[in-house]
Amino acid sequence: MSGRLAVVGLGPGDARFLTGEAIAALEAADAVYGYGPYLERVPVRPGQSRHASDNREELARAGAALDHAASGMSVAMVSGGDPGVFAMAAAVCEAVEHGPAAWRALDLAIVPGVTAMLAVAAAAGAPLGHDFCAISLSDNLKPWALIERRLALAAEAGFVIALYNPVSRARPTQLASAFALLARHLPPVTPVIFGRAVGRADGSLAVVPLADAAAQHADMATLVIVGSALTRLVDRPGRPPLVYTPRSAPGGNE
Amino acid sequence: MSGRLAVVGLGPGDARFLTGEAIAALEAADAVYGYGPYLERVPVRPGQSRHASDNREELARAGAALDHAASGMSVAMVSGGDPGVFAMAAAVCEAVEHGPAAWRALDLAIVPGVTAMLAVAAAAGAPLGHDFCAISLSDNLKPWALIERRLALAAEAGFVIALYNPVSRARPTQLASAFALLARHLPPVTPVIFGRAVGRADGSLAVVPLADAAAQHADMATLVIVGSALTRLVDRPGRPPLVYTPRSAPGGNE
Repeated sequence: MSGRLAVVGLGPGDARFLTGEAIAALEAADAVYGYGPYLERVPVRPGQSRHASDNREELARAGAALDHAASGMSVAMVSGGDPGVFAMAAAVCEAVEHGPAAWRALDLAIVPGVTAMLAVAAAAGAPLGHDFCAISLSDNLKPWALIERRLALAAEAGFVIALYNPVSRARPTQLASAFALLARHLPPVTPVIFGRAVGRADGSLAVVPLADAAAQHADMATLVIVGSALTRLVDRPGRPPLVYTPRSAPGGNE
Repeated sequence: MSGRLAVVGLGPGDARFLTGEAIAALEAADAVYGYGPYLERVPVRPGQSRHASDNREELARAGAALDHAASGMSVAMVSGGDPGVFAMAAAVCEAVEHGPAAWRALDLAIVPGVTAMLAVAAAAGAPLGHDFCAISLSDNLKPWALIERRLALAAEAGFVIALYNPVSRARPTQLASAFALLARHLPPVTPVIFGRAVGRADGSLAVVPLADAAAQHADMATLVIVGSALTRLVDRPGRPPLVYTPRSAPGGNE
């Protein structure tokens, strides 16, 4: 009796961003686990059980889904965006490493999806068109000093910077600190993109210069992209400006 | 008469990684442009013209598609993976900025997709589960010294590093140089993932310690992920090991 766990990326919001592979994995499942709001995006199917949990219980949720799969069932764990980027895949792997041997015998599949920074970048133009990095601003699982060090090194390297988990109720001040730190390394006109719920009907996008970027522009549903010194704005009549980072850097062949 | 250009991400290979949004954009197009092998992934449709081009003519291809759209047509430009990550979206934005005013009046849509590093990460486990960066190793458009600087800063920051365009016929030596540089910053056992054509039927995955990583493991269809000092291997009986980077870093709350 060999069970299966598929960790499925739902993409940034609407069903139109699901891949065929994700749809197939959800249809094949006997049971679906996930954080409540993500689970609500999955159509109810007869005979398929649903197990909603709190956002903060990642390891417990992973363990429950692995246990269920180990009983011989086909289980899907849903994740917003891509499960591998600041989402459930790492928690599942961590549980598998430290859990019972039966969990390491399971058929484990990670089904990739469109992560938030790709959806926000697409809505803005092509800000990730050159080298970039992704940093979670949550200091629940790492020290704030390490986050500050990474922000400074990323700016020094000339990376465009995608900020996941920019704020939460428990962490209202980190984003302002991050902007203040980055302002010491980047020009005041550096474009900062605030993408809120992009990929959903109520999504919105704002682009402001780093000098005016404020933590109030972001909430828990926001993904922030801070440009590099090379990131450009292209004004367009009657349309929002395009934001893009050129493929070439000074000193290259073009 | 207002035309439309959609820059569409095809994902890592098989049609099962397309999103519904990408399928709809391809179906709605009067004309489809793209690098030949990507265009071949798009089903032929009656009444839809097809325009294949060479991989190195990105700006010319963007201009031809923009001109076609500006004549009032609905045009799709296809891109492997996600168009915003080392692909066509930045070239299109660059053309729009420097081209005729009519191009800035177009309805331009970037349709995101699953970029190669997400597909390779999913196939391996969750190596991108903590902060990470993406660097193109191609020095066609930026100086090699800048790439070396970014690799060193990324390793110093503790980022997992996804390497796009690791080798080409014109650049056989960069990847070996990159491994040698990273070996001065990272433990010899750091896992390195070589994902070749992942997402296609002929795809393959190899995981080797940094000390044994060689450029011969990669070709033009390979995406390389170099772990951080925290990236772990989980052995599993009868299955390839899982590779993941824990969500937490030392000094955090967990």
